[in-house]
Amino acid sequence: MLEKVIIVRYGEIGIKSPKVRGRFERKLIDNIKNVINDEIDLKQGRIYIHTHDLDWAIESLANIPGIVSFSPAAVTKTNHDSIKELIEVYIGELVHEGTFSSQDSFAIRCRRVGEHDFSSQEMAAYCGSVVYGITQSKVDLSHPDFELYVEIRGNKTYVFHQKIAGLGGLPVGTQGRVVSLVSSGIDSPVATFLMMKRGCSVTMVNFNNHPYTSGSNEKILKIYNKLNEYSAGGKLRLYQVDYGEYLHKCIDEAPERMTCVLCKSGMYQIAEKIADKENALAIIDGSSLGQVASQTLPNVLATRYSTSMPVLSPLIGLDKVEIENIAKKIGTYELSILPDSDCSAVPRHPETNADLPLVLETLEKINAEQEFEKAVSSVKLLK
Amino acid sequence: MLEKVIIVRYGEIGIKSPKVRGRFERKLIDNIKNVINDEIDLKQGRIYIHTHDLDWAIESLANIPGIVSFSPAAVTKTNHDSIKELIEVYIGELVHEGTFSSQDSFAIRCRRVGEHDFSSQEMAAYCGSVVYGITQSKVDLSHPDFELYVEIRGNKTYVFHQKIAGLGGLPVGTQGRVVSLVSSGIDSPVATFLMMKRGCSVTMVNFNNHPYTSGSNEKILKIYNKLNEYSAGGKLRLYQVDYGEYLHKCIDEAPERMTCVLCKSGMYQIAEKIADKENALAIIDGSSLGQVASQTLPNVLATRYSTSMPVLSPLIGLDKVEIENIAKKIGTYELSILPDSDCSAVPRHPETNADLPLVLETLEKINAEQEFEKAVSSVKLLK
Repeated sequence: MLEKVIIVRYGEIGIKSPKVRGRFERKLIDNIKNVINDEIDLKQGRIYIHTHDLDWAIESLANIPGIVSFSPAAVTKTNHDSIKELIEVYIGELVHEGTFSSQDSFAIRCRRVGEHDFSSQEMAAYCGSVVYGITQSKVDLSHPDFELYVEIRGNKTYVFHQKIAGLGGLPVGTQGRVVSLVSSGIDSPVATFLMMKRGCSVTMVNFNNHPYTSGSNEKILKIYNKLNEYSAGGKLRLYQVDYGEYLHKCIDEAPERMTCVLCKSGMYQIAEKIADKENALAIIDGSSLGQVASQTLPNVLATRYSTSMPVLSPLIGLDKVEIENIAKKIGTYELSILPDSDCSAVPRHPETNADLPLVLETLEKINAEQEFEKAVSSVKLLK
Repeated sequence: MLEKVIIVRYGEIGIKSPKVRGRFERKLIDNIKNVINDEIDLKQGRIYIHTHDLDWAIESLANIPGIVSFSPAAVTKTNHDSIKELIEVYIGELVHEGTFSSQDSFAIRCRRVGEHDFSSQEMAAYCGSVVYGITQSKVDLSHPDFELYVEIRGNKTYVFHQKIAGLGGLPVGTQGRVVSLVSSGIDSPVATFLMMKRGCSVTMVNFNNHPYTSGSNEKILKIYNKLNEYSAGGKLRLYQVDYGEYLHKCIDEAPERMTCVLCKSGMYQIAEKIADKENALAIIDGSSLGQVASQTLPNVLATRYSTSMPVLSPLIGLDKVEIENIAKKIGTYELSILPDSDCSAVPRHPETNADLPLVLETLEKINAEQEFEKAVSSVKLLK
């Protein structure tokens, strides 16, 4: 039975100052510990996880922001006999499961840190002869079918053949908290995910437009649960704002075509108030320029004007198809496309060229601020 | 000699209202005409280019935002004999150049719009027999090595085998003008490209930090020229602001660690003034959260606070490696990494947790507004 560890590599953290780097590494380890209850070591810029449940660990690590790649590895002492013995068992298992065969060409990729009485090349040649001894496979250093990595770090040697891609990004919780406007559509969950991936703790804010929508929370709760799989320790929160009364007022008292602009402006203003309470420093949304009627430059300007907090729109430069591809990858797409009622407050011809002074004047006229205060005071914590 | 046309497909435009769609289609055709001086038709949701220079047209179309894919096609009349004749020549050429051989399995993909006395399936079977007659290749509808597309539109039939990917996005000029802060680094040219791809006309604003940098314009002009390849008709402008004097003032009169925050805040404020003159509606920058010291949430908040125009940061949710990959794809990467002087105004320990009241107070104290006015009045149009 081989002793197994998982070697975890992290990326951008590496280029930061020693102080920042230390903070990021500790946070990443905390986040991993929140999900994987195993022994975790940090050594020379790598994280080593001594896991009891390899499958669970692999599945979990793939969802933790800040990890660039990871490799399940077998570990032994750094000496020729132990390494030979380990490779024989390791390759034996791969041959048994059909991952590697005598038909495959192979290469040994050997790296070494520390003082040893052999060079990396010498050890690579030695390991190559061990593999050849088992399978009589051909060596091909340029385009091998199979690569075996032998990493020697001091008196420990790690052998592995897989580099599994992680999410990249930064550990959740290293960048402070943001408030994210999340509907059950395709875009806003993707925007939320991207900011979690960049290290933000996120407070999701969902607007319930009942009676202009069904008011059902089923989809948003499913989306919350999916996004929560990526939060790894940075507590993901979900608030809901009752928004129907304000929409009613917009429809009743303002020009019909302005409803969507007044709706969006209100969302930002309410999000800012919630952000203040949550000590959040920015608002996130799923805007993608030109994708729908409300996402023109004049509308972006007019709807954000009354908010002094930065609105960050990570999808602003992406195409619908690019956004959908991310949604499919992270598993929110299939939830977002579940059948749902469209918002019946949307007018037949929504404003696409909002006039800023008119928007400000209308917000004043319908006494929007009072509605926003009311909405914030009735906000519910769903998760 | 076959009559050749290029069939151009566009994507998101298709899902818009008929009025918006018409405007977008006309803009896309205008943009193509700006680059390719050929006869261009619009028919049933496709653009057909009758080109004199196929290679140039292919190279150009790949760089025009709003195009999803395009296919160089041979065209003939819609009748069995003409189609047979065309396929014989078309396949003959492909066999001659080695693109298709008798070893390759193949499939005919036939689509038909209009009234004809045959079905798509019948025509596909007929074309298949023509190809078989030439190469005796095996038909494989599920996983063919080679696909031949036969598109029948009324009395014209188009035959092609390639679908070349375009940039996607929206035609430049359909989304109004933005001002983009562009340095000669890796990120901001990518941000600029993404917003051009989303249909924006762009005014680039470059800050010349001389004497804290070399003051050379070589790199920024190269980057301008590269980005201009994607502007297809939406005039790309490049302004330069002399910024050394303001930086000198920051270093002289404000706490050392605040230089970068004051620098960035000034860039936004000057960009807003230029945007007003240019009738632009938003500011673009290359911020990526957490990538460097100035890109923390507190700094984003503090540096944007004095600007009322929206700041759109299309890279805010991307990793460095993702940004670099786009830069490599669009050809700005190799320009951005050319050797250049670092900015010597950057302090040893730049502020990472900017205090908003202190930033506002300091801007006031150093009379920044006056410096910004001066900088704007001396702005130079480089391109």
